[in-house]
Amino acid sequence: MEELDSGSLEPATQVDVLIVGAGLSGLTAAREIKTKSPHLKVMVVEAKDRVGGRTYTVDLKAANGKTDKWDMGHGRTMDRFDPKIRPEAHRRVWTDHLRAAHERKEGVAGRKPEDSSPRSADPFLERIQLESLVKTVNVEDLYDTPRAKEYDALSTEDWIRQNAYTRMVRDVMECATKSIYGIPSKRISFLYFLYYSKCAGNFEDLTECENNGAQGIKVKGGTNQISQRLAECLAEGELVLNTAVRDIDMRDPQNVLVHTMPTHHFNGKKPAEVELDISRIRCKRLLLAIPPNQCGCIKWLPGLPYLKEQLFASFPAGNLFKCIITYEKAFWREKGLSGEVLSSGVTEMAGEVMPVISGFDATTIDGNPAMVLFLNNEWADRSLEQRRSAVVRDLARFLGDEALDYVDYRDKDWHLEPFNGGCPVACIPPGNMEAFSHVREPIDLVHFAGTETATHWPGYLSGAIQAGYRAAHEVLFHMDNSKVEHRHLKGSVYDTDAGLPTAPDNSYKADECSPWPRRIVLYSAVAVGIYLYSKKYELSHTGRLLRPIERSVIKWWSGSTWP
Amino acid sequence: MEELDSGSLEPATQVDVLIVGAGLSGLTAAREIKTKSPHLKVMVVEAKDRVGGRTYTVDLKAANGKTDKWDMGHGRTMDRFDPKIRPEAHRRVWTDHLRAAHERKEGVAGRKPEDSSPRSADPFLERIQLESLVKTVNVEDLYDTPRAKEYDALSTEDWIRQNAYTRMVRDVMECATKSIYGIPSKRISFLYFLYYSKCAGNFEDLTECENNGAQGIKVKGGTNQISQRLAECLAEGELVLNTAVRDIDMRDPQNVLVHTMPTHHFNGKKPAEVELDISRIRCKRLLLAIPPNQCGCIKWLPGLPYLKEQLFASFPAGNLFKCIITYEKAFWREKGLSGEVLSSGVTEMAGEVMPVISGFDATTIDGNPAMVLFLNNEWADRSLEQRRSAVVRDLARFLGDEALDYVDYRDKDWHLEPFNGGCPVACIPPGNMEAFSHVREPIDLVHFAGTETATHWPGYLSGAIQAGYRAAHEVLFHMDNSKVEHRHLKGSVYDTDAGLPTAPDNSYKADECSPWPRRIVLYSAVAVGIYLYSKKYELSHTGRLLRPIERSVIKWWSGSTWP
Repeated sequence: MEELDSGSLEPATQVDVLIVGAGLSGLTAAREIKTKSPHLKVMVVEAKDRVGGRTYTVDLKAANGKTDKWDMGHGRTMDRFDPKIRPEAHRRVWTDHLRAAHERKEGVAGRKPEDSSPRSADPFLERIQLESLVKTVNVEDLYDTPRAKEYDALSTEDWIRQNAYTRMVRDVMECATKSIYGIPSKRISFLYFLYYSKCAGNFEDLTECENNGAQGIKVKGGTNQISQRLAECLAEGELVLNTAVRDIDMRDPQNVLVHTMPTHHFNGKKPAEVELDISRIRCKRLLLAIPPNQCGCIKWLPGLPYLKEQLFASFPAGNLFKCIITYEKAFWREKGLSGEVLSSGVTEMAGEVMPVISGFDATTIDGNPAMVLFLNNEWADRSLEQRRSAVVRDLARFLGDEALDYVDYRDKDWHLEPFNGGCPVACIPPGNMEAFSHVREPIDLVHFAGTETATHWPGYLSGAIQAGYRAAHEVLFHMDNSKVEHRHLKGSVYDTDAGLPTAPDNSYKADECSPWPRRIVLYSAVAVGIYLYSKKYELSHTGRLLRPIERSVIKWWSGSTWP
Repeated sequence: MEELDSGSLEPATQVDVLIVGAGLSGLTAAREIKTKSPHLKVMVVEAKDRVGGRTYTVDLKAANGKTDKWDMGHGRTMDRFDPKIRPEAHRRVWTDHLRAAHERKEGVAGRKPEDSSPRSADPFLERIQLESLVKTVNVEDLYDTPRAKEYDALSTEDWIRQNAYTRMVRDVMECATKSIYGIPSKRISFLYFLYYSKCAGNFEDLTECENNGAQGIKVKGGTNQISQRLAECLAEGELVLNTAVRDIDMRDPQNVLVHTMPTHHFNGKKPAEVELDISRIRCKRLLLAIPPNQCGCIKWLPGLPYLKEQLFASFPAGNLFKCIITYEKAFWREKGLSGEVLSSGVTEMAGEVMPVISGFDATTIDGNPAMVLFLNNEWADRSLEQRRSAVVRDLARFLGDEALDYVDYRDKDWHLEPFNGGCPVACIPPGNMEAFSHVREPIDLVHFAGTETATHWPGYLSGAIQAGYRAAHEVLFHMDNSKVEHRHLKGSVYDTDAGLPTAPDNSYKADECSPWPRRIVLYSAVAVGIYLYSKKYELSHTGRLLRPIERSVIKWWSGSTWP
């Protein structure tokens, strides 16, 4: 067994910058560092047997015996692409000027369709309230946001319960939350919910297909090709697959020593012939472009600062369980339906949950009809056959029985994906936003990328790329300072324009006292007012009500009995 | 590099039962299985270089140049001990009939002592309310608890904010939460808070030194000796230290294959000469007696069921930062003080947090005076010198300047401990209690112990032992059924007396609608009532207020102008 006394100067592969994670963020960072400073030796290690991380494109059988490509992972919003890398994108077709499918769903047995499947597009009063709260968030200085501390401790479900006027609004919010984060609203800090919306512009942009909406733009041929094109920028030996990081030794102030382990047995492949022993890699700067829950699984030497440790331990990934169903014809359009589906999945039967949360028309630019659906995680542990049949039957309730006659079906349960544990994004549970406010902070020689660290569309492709650029320029700041573009460092601790971030205000405040004393004074004043008013106008029947109290107060006060 | 195609039948060490984690829970299970079924081959692997897990006893310099032992980890409550193992225990001295120290603390500059350091022992109104809620919890069937779903989504801080009448109560609750869980109340699901209190009896038992209180009983010579005595029951080669589990392969329905890795470099030790290659261990039953966050760091093949995955990803460990200070004399007793300290740590200066949360007299049975203090995690990342000086100065505010003249100081920051990540217990954040209700459930051939899985004093020594017995008998249920004692299986899925657990009720309910429509009707009725009342008694000045509204309603209704 190899000896692992890692503080010593035993042989290790030496690089300048080691990047962990060959997703969009890590590859963007690698390419940026290589482009700006070609003399730096860069290496990217990836635990999976493929690049792309949470972007994952698969072939499905399509209409007329053809095959086409669909995204089983991220497939949404982008900008910030280098023109050389940018693939052809197109607007999702058939979203506007058509009725959403769920308008037709009256009369389904066992549920109240008008409640459990409301229209997402309907503006509702609470959205105005929500958007006005979103506007108050300061993305780069979280605790500058009004009532930040209070909203941090509040779960999003509690905010909705306290503020939604109708059941319909609560259902729409729950569907939206599950479709955006892959997690129910009770598990999300309301401050994170507001922050996430603000990073995207506003809450509407997260949910809609139109204008700047996240659901609007798709990539022709799938999003995975972006990572593949980025990976082509790396030379032979600069990208190593099937290699996970086991521990990170930061005890040497000049170098980071990383121990890796092979992961072939997870991918069912034999290990390739390795020319280079990379079980120990020593680097000058380490860039982690992996999800936060995976950072938490790495052993750190010495231990992490307290808030970073808390962040990694309390930043679980959501699980947006995605499914694609292809059809011979886009039969829903012939009925005048857009294909947009929204359902709470809840029925009047306790314990029963329908699989479909939401769905959209996913017809490709080549015209191969398909639906993309997001499924409830309650269906994660069923067999593929059970799931397929339930999903298709649920879809038929919305679009009609033609939905039963599909060409191909495929779903992906991201929680089973090793070295990932979920998709699309990690979410902060209530009470952890102070730790989150340190998400972009480097630790000594270690920098952090990944879509969760972005300030613009975190959780989306754009966010991954923004974070990749930021982390790359953080590394360049130390290794090749003349090449740094400061616009990429916005929102990081290297942002020279920004002041010190606002700390959460934990100081003792006299006005933080309970509202009850004030209420009691107010209610008493009102009662006294009513009493005096009644006396003045000699309203004896009101006075009679208060007479016993009046009498006992007088008695207690003066000791004498009052008539 | 070793090939790791683990599904195959390549050589591996074969045992009947592999137990991961040589804490109190794992060692109890090992001993129980060996005692009941001596023919079973048992092996315990432990990532640290010592047994005992979160119990950890150290030597400190004490009065008169002697040394004595104190607990830096768990040191509280126990029962269920086998008489052969049970060490000598004693009641914490000097807790009753003495004034608590913080009564004397008036006039400390920069804070409001009467608010920030209230007496813990004072009964307060909200405690009655809290205890009545604790009584409603069904520990073995969580969702049988009234309002379980609602309390799950609520953070404990929100419950306190909504229900505490005074700032003092909020401060006491916050100190208590931090001292019990090592985590602020905003990060804990209120349902978990109630559950945890119910498991201990009631909330008071968690906080008090007297009667059944958790703070009352200490072990002479430290709690670590319990684990050491348990470890002595294991034969040579049955306990392997410095070995962590890297991944668990459950694809074979008859065996579990476990890959381990050496951890010597974390403990700063050279690996011992290993006679046996234990990098691959095949076992018939696997028993995990490690904290849930560590279960989440293991890679599982195939992936975990969804709710288990969610549980491990959302069950972060608290960090009760403990410190022991020894003195020549118990000077506080001479002043008539018990030594009990309680402080919110908050001052009127923003960003300033005092280190001490709570403290007790920790004088040993041999009469060596000491104080045990629990510290705010804000002080975790400071240097030992900074911390020591701040802690001693903070303590002097409570006990007087004699506190500055200590003999020895030692603190332990559990978040830095590898293969642990915190102490005393993991806590469920809001919204995750449905996943938690599966905490004791085995997965195929894998069983779970550890104090978090207990139903009686989870988070304490007793809980670890109860869970160890339960998991041991779950294993015996399959491997040597005649030896099972069913009383140990209570609360597990093997409990034949218990029915199916109640599922969280997610069904559609008409009465779950918003209170607003009812409120609007009520407020309108009140307004109309006031108006009619004013009309009847010809109260023109009240009527005048309502006249414009009345006039426009009449106009809209009849079309004619009303005088």
